[in-house]
Amino acid sequence: MGKLVVVALGGNALLRSNQKGTYKEQIENVTETCEALMSFIKNGDNLIIGHGNGPQVGNVMLQHEAGAKMFEVQAMPMDFCVSETQGSIGYMIETGFRKVLSQHGYKHNIVTLVTRVLVDANDPMFKNPTKPVGPYYDKEEAEDYAAATGAIFKEDPKGRGWRKVVASPKPLEINNIELVELLARQGNIVVTAGGGGIPVVEKDGYYVGVEAVIDKDLASSLAAVQVKADEFYILTDVPQAYINFRKENEKALGRITVAEAKKYLEEGQFTEGSMAPKMRAAVKFVEETGHDAVITDATSLGNPNAGTRIVKR
Amino acid sequence: MGKLVVVALGGNALLRSNQKGTYKEQIENVTETCEALMSFIKNGDNLIIGHGNGPQVGNVMLQHEAGAKMFEVQAMPMDFCVSETQGSIGYMIETGFRKVLSQHGYKHNIVTLVTRVLVDANDPMFKNPTKPVGPYYDKEEAEDYAAATGAIFKEDPKGRGWRKVVASPKPLEINNIELVELLARQGNIVVTAGGGGIPVVEKDGYYVGVEAVIDKDLASSLAAVQVKADEFYILTDVPQAYINFRKENEKALGRITVAEAKKYLEEGQFTEGSMAPKMRAAVKFVEETGHDAVITDATSLGNPNAGTRIVKR
Repeated sequence: MGKLVVVALGGNALLRSNQKGTYKEQIENVTETCEALMSFIKNGDNLIIGHGNGPQVGNVMLQHEAGAKMFEVQAMPMDFCVSETQGSIGYMIETGFRKVLSQHGYKHNIVTLVTRVLVDANDPMFKNPTKPVGPYYDKEEAEDYAAATGAIFKEDPKGRGWRKVVASPKPLEINNIELVELLARQGNIVVTAGGGGIPVVEKDGYYVGVEAVIDKDLASSLAAVQVKADEFYILTDVPQAYINFRKENEKALGRITVAEAKKYLEEGQFTEGSMAPKMRAAVKFVEETGHDAVITDATSLGNPNAGTRIVKR
Repeated sequence: MGKLVVVALGGNALLRSNQKGTYKEQIENVTETCEALMSFIKNGDNLIIGHGNGPQVGNVMLQHEAGAKMFEVQAMPMDFCVSETQGSIGYMIETGFRKVLSQHGYKHNIVTLVTRVLVDANDPMFKNPTKPVGPYYDKEEAEDYAAATGAIFKEDPKGRGWRKVVASPKPLEINNIELVELLARQGNIVVTAGGGGIPVVEKDGYYVGVEAVIDKDLASSLAAVQVKADEFYILTDVPQAYINFRKENEKALGRITVAEAKKYLEEGQFTEGSMAPKMRAAVKFVEETGHDAVITDATSLGNPNAGTRIVKR
């Protein structure tokens, strides 16, 4: 009997920083990542995949902006844009994974669920939105836009202009997670909570979309907790986490306890916006389940000693 | 024990021709449609929903075009654009349906599957693409674009310019249909094959996307056949089909046999691009399963005598 494994794919699983982001490039990148994920399939594991959407949702927002200006197509809010990327990235992962499955002689289904993720309308992050999204505007444009829509704009620290900022609230519940678990435990590969999920808040017993972005590693971590996963992997572009990064006493982390991980986090050993949120997402999973979380890159998969493994004790 | 029902929603379930297509409008429209679909839920039926994406995918293509021109964001092919609309329209249907379910005190899950649909690379329709999609170009632009991409352009009969035309091949297989059936028979409302599905062709045992659009009624009809649905509904903007339409002897069709439907089709009683493909999709379902297909509008649902019901004999 294989394990139930949740893997969160980083942005570079689909789009690399030195690429233009053509369809062909993205399909090739994702196929390469899926090839690396075959080590789980060969091991007999059941697999649930979460993924980021940073560059893709950024592009969608630019397309909406441009479409409104050139063709008067309605620009849509953030939650809608995330739902579009869940469709397109899920489709690309399905394409890539079915190709490598077929090449290795496996017949697994791969299925993508559009996924809403509940956040708290009173999450303190809504009072202090910090996540810049969408196009850059000049000051006057930003002020007009803010007045018209109620959106909050902040000046880019690198002087590229003004950008809308949205909140990054904590994910509370992955919608339809019981269906994700059912399908995955039956041996289907399931893609869920893409881009951290479509952010929704509760209102009179149902959900309405909200302009926000949910950290994809936190959303995948929550999914992993909710399905009682045996292992949680966060794939990024480095093989391991480091302490004393780029100093003389730099040290790659292998197996560490959750207590050590928390101490390093407190010490500020990990970069905010990069390794720190991944470590927090890993810590959350280990604390809630007692099972291991691993932070590594795609090429290290399949080696049982690879990556930074966070264990209960 | 309720029935298993497949319903294909027409474009106007989400976007009405006199509207701008704001997010608010689309959510309101779809919520109204879901309210009408509650008659199935109250009846204890299990529900699978297919839907069109004509106006939405048109807008996505305009946004891609504009994004490429203004911000150098890569414009993506048709299959990718369809996948984006599966995400966004599925999300809007989930939002609307959960709201009405909650208002009526029901707890059904509603889940959207990104859905690839297999077509034949040798489908004769690929030799004669007829479906106009995306923005209008002037002649020179169209020629340049055609030379660069291999796309085929045709002049708009109303003189609005030149437009890309793509094939509308026959759907052969709904990907993951066994999972759709499983989830639906367990009482989950399942959205699948949105916009007719993401068109893919087989290549070396796996699927690759192809620039095409699949008729959404035909795709939903195929889904209904594959899940062995007890009934298949095609929702459109008229309560019934007519023969001798707008003539003195015009007659609304109530219950007709599949043989009658085929005779009327042969006589050209139904408008191509409108009622005719719906009637063909209905006929296909009845011929394959022996069960009834109904063509009607949302407001007629719940009345057992409403609509045009096509029966085996």
